[in-house]
Amino acid sequence: MNVRWTIIVIASLILVACSGDPAIVEQSGDEAKQEKFQWKLVTTWPKNYPGLGTTPEYFSELVERMSNGRLKIKVYGAGQLVPALEVFDAVSQGTAEMGHGAAYYWKGKVPASVFFTSVPFGLNAQEMNGWLHYGGGLELWRELYAPFNLVPFAGGNSGVQMAGWFNREINSLDDIKGLKMRIPGIGGEVITKAGGEAVTIPGGELYTALQTGVIDATEWVGPYNDLAFGFHQIARYYYYPGWQETGSSLEFIINKSDWESLPQDLQAIVEAASRAANQNMLDEYTARNNAALVTLVEEHDVQLRRLPDDVLIELHRITDQVLEEFVEQDPLARRVYESQKMFQEQVANYHKISEEAYYRARRLR
Amino acid sequence: MNVRWTIIVIASLILVACSGDPAIVEQSGDEAKQEKFQWKLVTTWPKNYPGLGTTPEYFSELVERMSNGRLKIKVYGAGQLVPALEVFDAVSQGTAEMGHGAAYYWKGKVPASVFFTSVPFGLNAQEMNGWLHYGGGLELWRELYAPFNLVPFAGGNSGVQMAGWFNREINSLDDIKGLKMRIPGIGGEVITKAGGEAVTIPGGELYTALQTGVIDATEWVGPYNDLAFGFHQIARYYYYPGWQETGSSLEFIINKSDWESLPQDLQAIVEAASRAANQNMLDEYTARNNAALVTLVEEHDVQLRRLPDDVLIELHRITDQVLEEFVEQDPLARRVYESQKMFQEQVANYHKISEEAYYRARRLR
Repeated sequence: MNVRWTIIVIASLILVACSGDPAIVEQSGDEAKQEKFQWKLVTTWPKNYPGLGTTPEYFSELVERMSNGRLKIKVYGAGQLVPALEVFDAVSQGTAEMGHGAAYYWKGKVPASVFFTSVPFGLNAQEMNGWLHYGGGLELWRELYAPFNLVPFAGGNSGVQMAGWFNREINSLDDIKGLKMRIPGIGGEVITKAGGEAVTIPGGELYTALQTGVIDATEWVGPYNDLAFGFHQIARYYYYPGWQETGSSLEFIINKSDWESLPQDLQAIVEAASRAANQNMLDEYTARNNAALVTLVEEHDVQLRRLPDDVLIELHRITDQVLEEFVEQDPLARRVYESQKMFQEQVANYHKISEEAYYRARRLR
Repeated sequence: MNVRWTIIVIASLILVACSGDPAIVEQSGDEAKQEKFQWKLVTTWPKNYPGLGTTPEYFSELVERMSNGRLKIKVYGAGQLVPALEVFDAVSQGTAEMGHGAAYYWKGKVPASVFFTSVPFGLNAQEMNGWLHYGGGLELWRELYAPFNLVPFAGGNSGVQMAGWFNREINSLDDIKGLKMRIPGIGGEVITKAGGEAVTIPGGELYTALQTGVIDATEWVGPYNDLAFGFHQIARYYYYPGWQETGSSLEFIINKSDWESLPQDLQAIVEAASRAANQNMLDEYTARNNAALVTLVEEHDVQLRRLPDDVLIELHRITDQVLEEFVEQDPLARRVYESQKMFQEQVANYHKISEEAYYRARRLR
């Protein structure tokens, strides 16, 4: 509406008001659209933790700007309102309207959730976004979370992670035997089946556990996050490539009743902001991981090592077994697994001659 | 005097006149923000052309939903309002408020623009987004377009393209000599310097040119777009990897005065919608290229071929020369080139042990 019309409309309304006409009530239509919402967003990360915790802040700020303050979302770090691992329940029950975290944290309650973060030897970031938005992934995710009164959206991606920090070299399969490693989820089951021992330790206790020899190894994310944690001070070997988390996707979850209470324009705003945040996090990791890697190798003398091929082949073989067993008892998990697996076979076929072939071609000199 | 104040003053005068309820006046602030905008968006693609032309449609629909119809953007295909290659000038001069295309089309007028689409042996999609949003790329782009009264945003990415369609096999550098190939931009200069002959032919005439032997080869995009064009009916060999366009970024451009006329919430909406569209196009190509490739190889008997290493090495060597000469006379082009080159050296270092190493690890069996 342009200025002149606004003025005429307001003047008319006031004139109507003077004559006591009930037409003023009709403004309630526009007024209803101007209803304001104050939401709480609980996260599984420390407040403003680089990349992971800054992504919901970026999202919240964008939503507030786009909605002109009609939807304000306050972000709480882990433990500020609810503990990290209660985010799913808190949003499901409506304690908070929204959450940000990683779907595989809910594996105990919703097994198929692991496929929406990352499974070993799975999709990378570009492929995960393709599957979610053009391969049926998001629809399956919606179906999976519906019984919990939750609506999910992709909420960032770390890219291919590092295989982790090790106190000893991994030269063969024998070096996996007896290895005590902090590695959660399906990756942990694979390590255990390969003869190691997967341990679950909260992030805050990891440093001490590795330092005192309670564990021999730990995976975390990648150079950008790992440098901040200081693992280089206590473990010498930094292994690649990450086989256990190959493009971990984060999630925004919204309480379904709260989602439905939003007018359509605010729903569209939330949808676009999550898509923008999803890309923004990957952009940040893409730009920052290498600088951190250079610091680790050049300033802290970290030894960069590649996992031997026979170790990778064996871990891949075990992964296939573990995933087959994992989905055996859960028909929805099987459907998700098969959808993702079929997508991966197809996209991997093309990426072999496009993205991978180009990475190699670029290095030829 | 701004809109809000004008309205308040007028409303106050009227209120004074009728001594009605002053609460009504407070609504005027919200009313002023409801000004409506109708924009035209001109593109360099045929209306609704898969991926390229559907991206601005996705963007426009998202903006309309988010703004609750306050910003309506009508998308015009190439030639509907202005010819494809006049999009830049049309938006610069305000004939249309917005445009969608590829920056390297404006190479004749703005040499540095090529770096915002793709240069040979350059960034891939993930890296381009990292550079634009966390590596200083977008700021340089804004600086480059400011004299033309334009504000640019990333507007989609094709991923690594294919090297193209060939009527003969490329087994060595000798097969490039005398090769007449449709290949635009810097890639074309490289082919010419390698002994071939780069030809510029509009998309609509390509099929006939290849069929009648006017050209021996052409590059286009990738399987999803190439299948639709029917090149498989007239050329037998389909080469990879694309070295000439390694992750081509598209662009949204907005007339600066029109951009500044938008209230801040609509600016934020345009910003987020372009970011969402930017990711959405790559997601679509990622999901659809392989299915098209399978159709080409299995149903149409297309022969898939990899460019020999010595050819790639030579093309890379020439690319470095051509780019150095290209930026020699243009200080801003040099700054952009050096920013992107430095970013690429760093990100390539990390992607060698992350994305590329993982692509390889996944294929081991």
